[in-house]
Amino acid sequence: MIIVILAGGSGTRFWPLSRVRSPKQLMSVLGGKSMLQRTVERVLPLQPERIMVITNRLQAEETAAQLCYITEVPVEVIAEPVGRNTAPAVGLAARLAVNPETIMAVLPADHVIPDQENFCEVLRRGAAAAGEGRLVTLGITPIRPETGYGYIEVAAGSAGPGPFPVSRFVEKPERERAGEFLSAGNFYWNSGMFLWRADVILDELQRHLPEVHAGLAALDVRDGHVISKALEAFYAGVKGESIDFGVMEKSDRVVMIPASFGWSDVGSWSALPEVLDADAAGNVLINTGDHLLTDTEGCLVYGGGKLVALLGVKDLIVVETPDALLVCPRDRAQEVKGIVEELDRRGLGEYL
Amino acid sequence: MIIVILAGGSGTRFWPLSRVRSPKQLMSVLGGKSMLQRTVERVLPLQPERIMVITNRLQAEETAAQLCYITEVPVEVIAEPVGRNTAPAVGLAARLAVNPETIMAVLPADHVIPDQENFCEVLRRGAAAAGEGRLVTLGITPIRPETGYGYIEVAAGSAGPGPFPVSRFVEKPERERAGEFLSAGNFYWNSGMFLWRADVILDELQRHLPEVHAGLAALDVRDGHVISKALEAFYAGVKGESIDFGVMEKSDRVVMIPASFGWSDVGSWSALPEVLDADAAGNVLINTGDHLLTDTEGCLVYGGGKLVALLGVKDLIVVETPDALLVCPRDRAQEVKGIVEELDRRGLGEYL
Repeated sequence: MIIVILAGGSGTRFWPLSRVRSPKQLMSVLGGKSMLQRTVERVLPLQPERIMVITNRLQAEETAAQLCYITEVPVEVIAEPVGRNTAPAVGLAARLAVNPETIMAVLPADHVIPDQENFCEVLRRGAAAAGEGRLVTLGITPIRPETGYGYIEVAAGSAGPGPFPVSRFVEKPERERAGEFLSAGNFYWNSGMFLWRADVILDELQRHLPEVHAGLAALDVRDGHVISKALEAFYAGVKGESIDFGVMEKSDRVVMIPASFGWSDVGSWSALPEVLDADAAGNVLINTGDHLLTDTEGCLVYGGGKLVALLGVKDLIVVETPDALLVCPRDRAQEVKGIVEELDRRGLGEYL
Repeated sequence: MIIVILAGGSGTRFWPLSRVRSPKQLMSVLGGKSMLQRTVERVLPLQPERIMVITNRLQAEETAAQLCYITEVPVEVIAEPVGRNTAPAVGLAARLAVNPETIMAVLPADHVIPDQENFCEVLRRGAAAAGEGRLVTLGITPIRPETGYGYIEVAAGSAGPGPFPVSRFVEKPERERAGEFLSAGNFYWNSGMFLWRADVILDELQRHLPEVHAGLAALDVRDGHVISKALEAFYAGVKGESIDFGVMEKSDRVVMIPASFGWSDVGSWSALPEVLDADAAGNVLINTGDHLLTDTEGCLVYGGGKLVALLGVKDLIVVETPDALLVCPRDRAQEVKGIVEELDRRGLGEYL
């Protein structure tokens, strides 16, 4: 198996911790190891033959530096010269597979999955279906009427470990519809994690995104690698497209494997209390020193190792980095993205 | 005139900025110069013959360092070996006056008075009354029913610039009583600022606190100074007593000069917006870098020069120092003192 980790995201909703050069997946958002490091370590029990981490040029150096301690498996960092969404990246990884029938697991670098064992078990089941020529997507069993995720619908009554044929992919729903999905029982969260054989995804790219495939076919791949000049030419010529819209929503080979492990795409600061242990009052403190919380509930503090004293506050997010301090209520964490945009408008590039 | 600045306070309600070794008066609570430096600079137009700053041993070095730039007037820092409240300190300063008829102005180091001109004018009027043998206390015309200050009552109908004989000193009142004081018109805030002649206060000490006076009389003062060994013996032997309870509330020579300059004893973080310019939404930012405030009202941020982003918060105090971070609502700022006590109980002495 080859693991392909998509790691080029910027994660502006984790500002001020995440920055252009050190986005969410490279930061210790959870304390300790970065999300990228956790993502790589999570797959090591599967003994993949190689791990490809696809990122952009700004982040490539830090990405490689963070992974140099991984010695069990060869880790390659591929720096895209320009971002072209996920289809070209996924296609490139497939094109670099030495054995065309190699199974690829495509994983975002910035998801939180605490239960490694369960996760690996699901990937093994996914790999089995992928080996039979399927495009496998992992669907997370929903546990609340979440409006922040897309959904995957399978046939009503689908039971057991799958794989299930996919009826359709559904965009992020309104609250009421999310509630209907939850009670219907045949809707799953679209996790953005995929498995397929290299030759199968290339075949599907040829069918649904022929230009991307043509660019890939023209690459002079030797021993599973390509020179950076060729990479540059490929990216300069290819159109941006997501693998979801470009292939998954069109292909008739798509199946879903249901997964019930704890999962979060950690879309903003407010998602962290879901995936980290909170104290009895629902407070989560990351990277702080001693703390003294008085009459304080539901707060998330990400600090620079300092003593933290909170007195009489509720549902606040407080983030402190060496050059910035953010305070906002938990239910407005999505708007942090807007702060980053405003900083950009004001020309305060040093904080981006 | 001699200026005596009482500077030994700890100001725990300004934690985490104020610490045992660097209390409120030594910190840049207002941004820029410290409150002590501002207090000293405020009296320079009066051309005093000397300025005595009375503090404790822990703070003496920093106190002296902060004032070494003052060249217009000799500044002496007197380090009390132990704290004995204000009566011994004030008596010592009087004993060190070379000319017994010198007028002393006794001023706390940690009050905010933005209007220097008005302040100096009031001190000149106070000095005139002091020259006639009075113990002069400055009473601030109240502008709200403040429950955090003591009050001074003068005869009903007292009008003009004073001095007025003092009817009585009143402890911090309950809210309703504070309202009555405000509407009565003959009650003033007790500022803790005094003027008197050195010989007069010594005379009053002899009458009301004879033991303090005896200790002072035994000091071998030469040319307005005393050796530190003598100081140690005096402090070891003397009982702690405040000049307010020990002398002012008992003497029949007390008069009050009314003052209407803006004044605050800046008892906690929540007092700062009273004395500093706030933006249109009532936010005050001190020692911060760029800032981006969205839907944010009535907040006070004291930062380490960082970019500050507040989103959707109201009436919060946020203080960040190199080793600590405090967040609390403005109306609970008084409780910060309790945080310091709790840190002490937990043995976290490095944060005190």
